[in-house]
Amino acid sequence: MIDLAKVRADTAACKNVLHLNNAGAALMPDAVVVRQLAHIHREAEIGGYEAAREAADEIDLVYNSIARLLNAAPDEIALMENATAAWNAAFFAFDFQPGDRLLTGEAEYASNYLNYLKLARTKGLVVETIPSTAEGELSIPDLEAACAKPGVKLIAVTHVPTNGGLVNPAEEIGRVARAHNIPFLLDACQSAGQIDLDVEKLGCDLLSVTGRKYLRGPRGSGFLYVRRGFLDQIEPPSLDLRAARWVAADRYELRPDARRFENWEYNYAAVLGLGTAVDYALALGLPEIEARVGALASGLRERLAALPGIAVEDIGQRRCGICTFQAEGMEAVEIWERLSAQSINTSVSDPNSTLLDATKRRLPDLLRASVHYYNSEEELDRFAEAVVSITAT
Amino acid sequence: MIDLAKVRADTAACKNVLHLNNAGAALMPDAVVVRQLAHIHREAEIGGYEAAREAADEIDLVYNSIARLLNAAPDEIALMENATAAWNAAFFAFDFQPGDRLLTGEAEYASNYLNYLKLARTKGLVVETIPSTAEGELSIPDLEAACAKPGVKLIAVTHVPTNGGLVNPAEEIGRVARAHNIPFLLDACQSAGQIDLDVEKLGCDLLSVTGRKYLRGPRGSGFLYVRRGFLDQIEPPSLDLRAARWVAADRYELRPDARRFENWEYNYAAVLGLGTAVDYALALGLPEIEARVGALASGLRERLAALPGIAVEDIGQRRCGICTFQAEGMEAVEIWERLSAQSINTSVSDPNSTLLDATKRRLPDLLRASVHYYNSEEELDRFAEAVVSITAT
Repeated sequence: MIDLAKVRADTAACKNVLHLNNAGAALMPDAVVVRQLAHIHREAEIGGYEAAREAADEIDLVYNSIARLLNAAPDEIALMENATAAWNAAFFAFDFQPGDRLLTGEAEYASNYLNYLKLARTKGLVVETIPSTAEGELSIPDLEAACAKPGVKLIAVTHVPTNGGLVNPAEEIGRVARAHNIPFLLDACQSAGQIDLDVEKLGCDLLSVTGRKYLRGPRGSGFLYVRRGFLDQIEPPSLDLRAARWVAADRYELRPDARRFENWEYNYAAVLGLGTAVDYALALGLPEIEARVGALASGLRERLAALPGIAVEDIGQRRCGICTFQAEGMEAVEIWERLSAQSINTSVSDPNSTLLDATKRRLPDLLRASVHYYNSEEELDRFAEAVVSITAT
Repeated sequence: MIDLAKVRADTAACKNVLHLNNAGAALMPDAVVVRQLAHIHREAEIGGYEAAREAADEIDLVYNSIARLLNAAPDEIALMENATAAWNAAFFAFDFQPGDRLLTGEAEYASNYLNYLKLARTKGLVVETIPSTAEGELSIPDLEAACAKPGVKLIAVTHVPTNGGLVNPAEEIGRVARAHNIPFLLDACQSAGQIDLDVEKLGCDLLSVTGRKYLRGPRGSGFLYVRRGFLDQIEPPSLDLRAARWVAADRYELRPDARRFENWEYNYAAVLGLGTAVDYALALGLPEIEARVGALASGLRERLAALPGIAVEDIGQRRCGICTFQAEGMEAVEIWERLSAQSINTSVSDPNSTLLDATKRRLPDLLRASVHYYNSEEELDRFAEAVVSITAT
């Protein structure tokens, strides 16, 4: 059980804001803030490289923490500047040839899909979108059928889309991928930190994560998991001194672990803050976090569904902490602004962020309220009251 | 004239360390530290997206400041996570075909060269290293001759190599590139902040920079300049929501400025700190900084050359703030460690970082002492004494 009073006391901002923008950037535990500040202070005292050298052992431990979070090994983890950099490093590590097929889902995130379209145009990649079931998740029978035909180079799926509450059936996708020996890249940007991830169960070869969302880490942090046995089947899209050693005029040697995907330079304060955030989540327990986030989100959807003129637009048999809705007669941006004026943090989901799903469901801009375990039932009551008072005017 | 007492008073660490690791990461002015800390505090008070929204106008001004630094326009600037990310975004934006020729120099940085070798292997890129003159800089007549033959896709050169003190003749390279209508990518990672850069005079189409070195900004910050008229001749190697808009199931539209090279997510504290650092440099004046750094480095080389058993290994007609040397009978790593124990910050240059140049000159590990304008003559005296006392034992 999560001690609500304690986790709220651990998070200074809980006193200032009603934060339902956890799918944007969650509130950092104070320990994450303190760790960043302490490192920047140390840089200011003795120099940037010198402070990094002092923190070297702790940086190593960040890999261990992330590995524990995913049930992976530390040498399967690469620290990345953000989830986009992590996902790109994985996706562009494949040597796509004309006619190669890529399988993805209808609720795929725009950033990923933009790159599919780019390679469709420049490399002749064939992008196939697996239909969703009536409930909204990627259809496993349709995925099976697509995999039965040759030429699938990669399955790339967003675990938790940016809106809609959906949790895609990643373990079933992984099972199909393994059965057909097809590489599987899972975008876990929105799921890490709110869902208990286990790369063995997920059956993915690559998994990309950001620090700032449900993991409650710093902005500008993230990581990539690369399954050890898969490392040599792909090649980092770019190389630097961390990734490889220049050993002769015409030859280099890649390092033997996932850090070949890293850049040598990073923001050490953010990395140390990320490590602190992961440790904080591990101490609470990911199963406990997942249960509480799921329960709070269900309660939020019930409250909202009971309000006049509010339509909850969430889908999927299994749902997460992200809740999206629209209000009759009022734009999401206006609701967002008015909530913001009351120190209630939410965000607006643009249909262009998940264009295929949004087009199919004819979605306008949606108001996105995303809960985390430190939110209280009282906050959700207050939020529902605020939504009524704003949308009824 | 730079007011030495003031710039040292502006930099808390000057009291704690003798910092000659400016080519690694320079000491941040206190204002840069304060700006980062203030933003992280604000994130901790109201949330990450909410703090970014408050800072939006100031973020816009960061582009203006960087544009001023380079004599560019704000829409020619992309904020990047580090110089490696900036350089990679530029280099991999070219659609290299088998047989395309790439021209570079002998003192090229390993990270860049690793990517040349990667594309030589995977895409048939022909990498041609232009010889250096007897003095050490890239030979302009040899570059002219290489450009006279067809098939040159790109000239990519490191402005200031990581060691050796050399300043490559970037303006002359730019003149040749323009005369032959060949794109020119300048790696200004080590020159920005110590040399007055003007993209019009340099004649480059692309220029990559880090924040943490001579610009005195935060770790994990950097930027890319893309000449406006050149923007549509290349394509970002990856796209996200910042770069493009997903407008139809099979179509996207790139944004019209250099920010198409950015990732949507970044570390806002680092970006705001970078802006503060650039403003600090602009207020002092880049010509003034360049003059002082050059004079201090000359003085350091003179001091070192006068010491028994010390060989300064710097090259080039025009030299910068980076000074490298070796000591008879003592490894650079040992000198570095012993200096470090006296709170004197330097670094070690591995020959694999500039393999072609190091092989040609048979260089071992070198001790690198890199000065900045806030270093004092007294510090250089003290450094020379420390080197004597360490290497004479």
